[in-house]
Amino acid sequence: MVHKQHDTRSRNIDGLVLAVDAGATHTRTAVANIGGRVFGKSLVGPANSYAVGELRALENLEDGIWQALRRAGVRASQISVAVIGTAGVDYDGSGAARITHSLRCELPKTQILVKADALIALEGALSGDPGVVIVCGTGSIVLGKDSSGKLAKVGGWGPLMGDEASAQWVSREALRRAALAADGTGPATSLVRCLLNRYKLHCFDRIIDAVYKHPMTPAELGALAPMVSSAAEQGDEVARDIFRVGAEALASQAAQAAARLELEPVKVSYQGSMFHTGTLLLKPLRSRLHSLAPQARLIAPAFSPLAGAFLLALRAKGINHLESLDLFQRGCHA
Amino acid sequence: MVHKQHDTRSRNIDGLVLAVDAGATHTRTAVANIGGRVFGKSLVGPANSYAVGELRALENLEDGIWQALRRAGVRASQISVAVIGTAGVDYDGSGAARITHSLRCELPKTQILVKADALIALEGALSGDPGVVIVCGTGSIVLGKDSSGKLAKVGGWGPLMGDEASAQWVSREALRRAALAADGTGPATSLVRCLLNRYKLHCFDRIIDAVYKHPMTPAELGALAPMVSSAAEQGDEVARDIFRVGAEALASQAAQAAARLELEPVKVSYQGSMFHTGTLLLKPLRSRLHSLAPQARLIAPAFSPLAGAFLLALRAKGINHLESLDLFQRGCHA
Repeated sequence: MVHKQHDTRSRNIDGLVLAVDAGATHTRTAVANIGGRVFGKSLVGPANSYAVGELRALENLEDGIWQALRRAGVRASQISVAVIGTAGVDYDGSGAARITHSLRCELPKTQILVKADALIALEGALSGDPGVVIVCGTGSIVLGKDSSGKLAKVGGWGPLMGDEASAQWVSREALRRAALAADGTGPATSLVRCLLNRYKLHCFDRIIDAVYKHPMTPAELGALAPMVSSAAEQGDEVARDIFRVGAEALASQAAQAAARLELEPVKVSYQGSMFHTGTLLLKPLRSRLHSLAPQARLIAPAFSPLAGAFLLALRAKGINHLESLDLFQRGCHA
Repeated sequence: MVHKQHDTRSRNIDGLVLAVDAGATHTRTAVANIGGRVFGKSLVGPANSYAVGELRALENLEDGIWQALRRAGVRASQISVAVIGTAGVDYDGSGAARITHSLRCELPKTQILVKADALIALEGALSGDPGVVIVCGTGSIVLGKDSSGKLAKVGGWGPLMGDEASAQWVSREALRRAALAADGTGPATSLVRCLLNRYKLHCFDRIIDAVYKHPMTPAELGALAPMVSSAAEQGDEVARDIFRVGAEALASQAAQAAARLELEPVKVSYQGSMFHTGTLLLKPLRSRLHSLAPQARLIAPAFSPLAGAFLLALRAKGINHLESLDLFQRGCHA
């Protein structure tokens, strides 16, 4: 808003870009110029069609875009390129047409590029370089890219079929292992007490009502994960083991993506809320990755997925310099 | 219908009983006299509130009762005792009052007893004797009973938290392990080809759309289980391993129930559609049970859960002889 008056003209000259990171829990949107200056941003609910259904996902996506445009004080016609990263789209691009079509009314004159959420995570984490990214938030997926731009996806099968180490997976494992402990068929764990507190129950048997009464969304289920990481940090062996098993699955997926693309040596990075747990995931991940793919180097992500979407927008405009990314990322977190 | 004329009087004298086995996939209802003669029966959809929601479960339950009464050609007022076994009710009886209240309009003069589905399975499988039953159909649960009638539940935590070896669990494991095989991070399995055929796909990646587009009910998900047992019977090692892991969890639960009730020696029996797979579940179950609880004897179920409900109805009328059960069970399967 504060920028509204002094640079409306430069915006028109440059052609602004719009970047969206549509997740299963939050959707982040930013409007910026090609120099990386952020004019408006927004944070709304999930825009992942697997997590909340197609209609709700599109509503949140459009709402996020509309809020960011309004806060930037620009018209949709001033956006020359929009890059949307979302789980509704596969890494090979399938599913993109439907979302592009839906956004056409909102952004009639804009070049709209809808990409897999894992791709913007990869581009951000590795500043556009080849390598492998492990994305682990509400869900999980591994994506690799070689120097020719060829992609390889491993994992990313969703809550029913995979999603190892994701917030949903960790929460489900915690529920499952607490049930084993309550039955006496698995090792004792503080997770039983944690869940009793969480759901305000006196008897663990009653958790069935709490868990099944209303079907939980992926975000609601994943919201148990911080409880599990606290338990692990306080030394609970069952909770620690959940993170270890999840991390080892991610390491195996990352090694497989690197092998499939014949990347050697390879930079492996990571994105997503589950990595805020720090060493809980990263330590066993690094250790297993080292034994499976000794040529791999695990590095902290350079930029956010949203910055990855911005990078793809720049590239669509024929711009390959990365100087703008720093400013963009700082602007997004301001 | 054929009995309608010649024994209307004897029905009135005896007081008829109604037995219901309300599952997550089917609901079986039968109207019989205390001698075990079945006058009417019905088979309708699921009446398990966790599987289809409370409203739909009650509708199916009432529909099943209404159909059985109509086919028996009797009025609701002729039913002196009704025993309903359902998963909406816990083994300690909680949740029964709500269902009893809902059925009051349907059966105004009847003594209504709503019991856990696992309890009617236990009573049927062991002819009312103490012991342990492993129930494994759409879901799974283990219930034990000692000679004083004290119960111990193990497992039965539903699809999110447990349900080991159940049709849903086997289906989910098959999806998960097929995804690992497709990724190359797990052993190869014919389940990938089976799922491609099942969902008419050319590329395994596309299964995500098939699996997540519409949320599957427990019965829909569990419907993949016969595909997994076929693969196992044809020697697929991954499919065989799914049954082995599931069976070992059930054995551990059965041993735990026996230990908790200090049952020694103990008869362990089983009920549910998953045992139609024969040795796939039973062989590893028997073997693990033998090592965990050498005093346990795994025996084939004597009677169905529906006959278990009938047995409880007889007991409510103060009748303890078991002669009627054979006739009842034959009448139900005629």
